[in-house]
Amino acid sequence: MTQNTQILLDNRPVGEATVGNFKAVTTDTPALQDGQVLVRHHFLSLDPYMRGRMNDSKSYAASQPLGEVMIGGTAGEVVESRHPKYQPGDLVVGMGGWQQYSVVNAAEPGALRKVDTTHVPLSHYLGAVGMPGVTAWYGLVKIIEPKAGETVVVSAASGAVGSAFGALAKARGCRVVGIAGGPDKCKYLTDELGFDAAIDHRAHPDLKSMSQALKAACPNGIDGYFENVGGHILDAVLLRANAFARIAVCGMIAGYDGAPLPLQNPALILVNRMKVQGFIVSEHMEVWPEALKELGTLVGTGKLRPRESVALGIESAPEAFLGLLKGKNFGKQLVKLI
Amino acid sequence: MTQNTQILLDNRPVGEATVGNFKAVTTDTPALQDGQVLVRHHFLSLDPYMRGRMNDSKSYAASQPLGEVMIGGTAGEVVESRHPKYQPGDLVVGMGGWQQYSVVNAAEPGALRKVDTTHVPLSHYLGAVGMPGVTAWYGLVKIIEPKAGETVVVSAASGAVGSAFGALAKARGCRVVGIAGGPDKCKYLTDELGFDAAIDHRAHPDLKSMSQALKAACPNGIDGYFENVGGHILDAVLLRANAFARIAVCGMIAGYDGAPLPLQNPALILVNRMKVQGFIVSEHMEVWPEALKELGTLVGTGKLRPRESVALGIESAPEAFLGLLKGKNFGKQLVKLI
Repeated sequence: MTQNTQILLDNRPVGEATVGNFKAVTTDTPALQDGQVLVRHHFLSLDPYMRGRMNDSKSYAASQPLGEVMIGGTAGEVVESRHPKYQPGDLVVGMGGWQQYSVVNAAEPGALRKVDTTHVPLSHYLGAVGMPGVTAWYGLVKIIEPKAGETVVVSAASGAVGSAFGALAKARGCRVVGIAGGPDKCKYLTDELGFDAAIDHRAHPDLKSMSQALKAACPNGIDGYFENVGGHILDAVLLRANAFARIAVCGMIAGYDGAPLPLQNPALILVNRMKVQGFIVSEHMEVWPEALKELGTLVGTGKLRPRESVALGIESAPEAFLGLLKGKNFGKQLVKLI
Repeated sequence: MTQNTQILLDNRPVGEATVGNFKAVTTDTPALQDGQVLVRHHFLSLDPYMRGRMNDSKSYAASQPLGEVMIGGTAGEVVESRHPKYQPGDLVVGMGGWQQYSVVNAAEPGALRKVDTTHVPLSHYLGAVGMPGVTAWYGLVKIIEPKAGETVVVSAASGAVGSAFGALAKARGCRVVGIAGGPDKCKYLTDELGFDAAIDHRAHPDLKSMSQALKAACPNGIDGYFENVGGHILDAVLLRANAFARIAVCGMIAGYDGAPLPLQNPALILVNRMKVQGFIVSEHMEVWPEALKELGTLVGTGKLRPRESVALGIESAPEAFLGLLKGKNFGKQLVKLI
């Protein structure tokens, strides 16, 4: 038995999420049953999709139940095993949730995945070489389907998904433009991640200004857009979209907290003969091996150097998560647990 | 030389289009050059897309130039020919415009198409077995890609595109629900066109009411939607869409006259993992032969009995067109010219 601090969803947000929605509890891990594995988490992943799960409303994913450990991806090591495939010391990623330890039914398909840290640091398996990276890959390769020379744009560009998107799009010969909040993140996009241009959305807080910034950054128009935020950025992209442009809708974080954010001029989807498509990467497990292979190579060869924001200790998870929703993170948001 | 009355676009609409935007003139047809054909129009087609052409704004299609004959599809007969492939008496369809006669360079690809009226009346080549029919076919077959048993919905359902859509979707084993204005059109949808259910949008003028009507008509949710109108109907469809629903965006007539109509909750595209795709049928000429063959068979065998609203005389075209924009037509809107 091991002491295990967990963060539960205590109550649902009314409007903006707050630390008061969460509650920390400490329990003992249960004794393992046959086929189970006890994993000590080194890192917890914090991701925008979690905000959607906190609501009770109809959503694409099941609501996070009240009083249960918050859902979340984790990377750690096996400390005890009653499953023949896993030995103490094995490094694994899974969906262990916001807690220090998890007991996993290892035989469940996809419950645990062993990872190799020779070329890729463990934490990156929660980011560029994990769900966020595959998310970028799916939106780019399967929805946007870019041709060399096309211009693609991504919002929340300095984050885990956006930075992977940039590297994947550059590898395909695209002009890549990133939108991020603040001059530091924009400088990081162009200087360290190899984006061709960056737009600071804080300097362009309305439709007209953002549209002009996109015009300057995308002299040949926009062929593909990876949508993480919604709101006036999406409206502006539609104004600058080329005929037959494709939009992969991965998130609309700007509307997560309250009233839906309208799309001002949907007729542009017709005018530009666009395709706008939403997706959830967990519904496309068939692409993960191919995507992870490419992403692992990009990271292993230094072509993708993802940045991380690391909070310390499980108790810091709620505040770090709320900061992520406001864009206070810089790169992939993690919580380090050991 | 033959006297030819033409309707020109005289000035552009400010807000709603009016008869004052048009001007009738009468001229003599010019003498034919080698390769030209003189066509006497029997029917002129009136279609919603023409409203978009009247504006000067950036659009997917070139603006209709001021002082020139309004663009439009026509069906008629060759009365004089200086092209070896055409003889007087040949029945042809083309883009002759809002006038009684047109002089056509017959060698231009797609300028004229001979048609056979053994099984299909001439006027239907402007509707079910013409551009509107192929429009329905493309949206259904290439974008919605329905499976048997799925539920598909079409707005402006009693019109030329909508009625063809219904027959094509029934032939594929779908549940087909039509939205139209007024009880007569709704009765026509279910009693004569074979729709499974009809919704009168005049009885459901707001989002909540339309959403409830869709829920009742689509007990298994909506898998595909063919969009002709925009506005609150589109918003309501998003609320009732199933996971992986597809929307083919063909028109947004509700917003043609003035300010863009927003889409209230675009995040539903993500929540439902939907595909929303705009298209223009003239950019997909490769599908026309296959589509026209199926549509001709549906009409020839009586499985599709399209209704027509026929205005008489070229001078009636402007008023008939404005009526079409308000949904005063019942079925395909034509002008009979002889």
